[in-house]
Amino acid sequence: MEKIASMKNQKVKQWKKLQTAKGRKEAGAYLIEGTHLLKEAIKADAHIQEVLMTETFHQQSDLQIEERDIIIVSQEILASLAQTETPQGVVAIVRIPETAPILEYRGKYILLDQVQDPGNVGTIIRTADAAGYTGVILGEGSVDLYNDKVLRSMQGSHFHLPIYRGDLQELIPEMKSNGIPVYGTELNEAAVDYRTVSPTGAVALVLGNEGNGVSKKVLELTDQNLYIPIFGEAESLNVAVAAGILLYHFVG
Amino acid sequence: MEKIASMKNQKVKQWKKLQTAKGRKEAGAYLIEGTHLLKEAIKADAHIQEVLMTETFHQQSDLQIEERDIIIVSQEILASLAQTETPQGVVAIVRIPETAPILEYRGKYILLDQVQDPGNVGTIIRTADAAGYTGVILGEGSVDLYNDKVLRSMQGSHFHLPIYRGDLQELIPEMKSNGIPVYGTELNEAAVDYRTVSPTGAVALVLGNEGNGVSKKVLELTDQNLYIPIFGEAESLNVAVAAGILLYHFVG
Repeated sequence: MEKIASMKNQKVKQWKKLQTAKGRKEAGAYLIEGTHLLKEAIKADAHIQEVLMTETFHQQSDLQIEERDIIIVSQEILASLAQTETPQGVVAIVRIPETAPILEYRGKYILLDQVQDPGNVGTIIRTADAAGYTGVILGEGSVDLYNDKVLRSMQGSHFHLPIYRGDLQELIPEMKSNGIPVYGTELNEAAVDYRTVSPTGAVALVLGNEGNGVSKKVLELTDQNLYIPIFGEAESLNVAVAAGILLYHFVG
Repeated sequence: MEKIASMKNQKVKQWKKLQTAKGRKEAGAYLIEGTHLLKEAIKADAHIQEVLMTETFHQQSDLQIEERDIIIVSQEILASLAQTETPQGVVAIVRIPETAPILEYRGKYILLDQVQDPGNVGTIIRTADAAGYTGVILGEGSVDLYNDKVLRSMQGSHFHLPIYRGDLQELIPEMKSNGIPVYGTELNEAAVDYRTVSPTGAVALVLGNEGNGVSKKVLELTDQNLYIPIFGEAESLNVAVAAGILLYHFVG
């Protein structure tokens, strides 16, 4: 088992690069932190390149990892790679799948149009997983899936359902021609109350940017646009909450 | 108009104390940041003690604030009081209301049992506002309402609906004896699928801690406990998302 104690070690420098979207893209890998995510990665048979842990963690760990995949690192190195304030003592390097999943145009999808808050994106993916949706599509301008905050709020759901990247203006017509009803969401009442629309077996729900909502070009392509009524004085709902209400409405 | 440029000014030191729960309690005041919250505070006729702004902000501002309530501060002072990375240039000191609102035991309530993530608490209050609920009750062990992250995610909803603090184990029997059905939420299926329960005019929904759910003692006091079914592989829903689904279900 390899041991690394120096912050100046070349490997440490390489790993630290995975904290940026650019570094992840170049290396084709990302960092996950903590036992929960690592267990999810193992269960999903993800390609785990290396597992870094402190000596203390290693002694207490009951994780099923081959010794040759483990590197023991100093507390200082682990803390520099972890993004939480009180890291659990384990970080792993996971390969980004090289082949994109194939979109099958059947089932229930959620499409994100420039949703930028990482916590919201992660929470929406976790909710889509919980609600048993077929997949999530990240439109252009959405946050990087392997951002640490997205990973933390997804809680491993990216190992459970396919997440696609694509141009929503191309994908929405494809969905429609495959018989999937596509619903946009609007922040105003220039749309239909979601409660009046009955759940269907296949559906595509489009959610938009926190400040601006779904872009006008996308709203024009949908079959119908929905709104969630506001009964009080709040101006709008948080986008992840709105997603939860709609996703579960269309579960039926 | 008073101007303060030195970080060592006594007032700056007093204001900085409002960044902690202890400091807010002692001073009976809290900080709000940005034009949106300030406008909400003005609209709600909240007791605004002082409005601190940079010279630049003051020149561009169209806020209706009396000059004698404004203090011009340096960029450095403003940045030290603001909690966002790119502050808008205005922070205000708002009095915490001295008298607690009176609970009227009619309508729709959401009760939080030790919900600790400030973003979740703020988002739930914002959703309760949007869904037109009567009030929110923070049980013991819930996060401080005037925490900057709670304030940011509430987006001013605490100016729109009453937020109570109380012991849920005392309040739940009171609610029930006033004819309000009380539903707890469980993370497992030792409860009833929420979709089988019809919305009612009055309701109290109890949501629990992110990790542990609603405490056992509280669950024993409710009329019935509900769960949101999980169709995929996610272990649970984010508590603010679960709240959104249930709040809107009970709107009817």
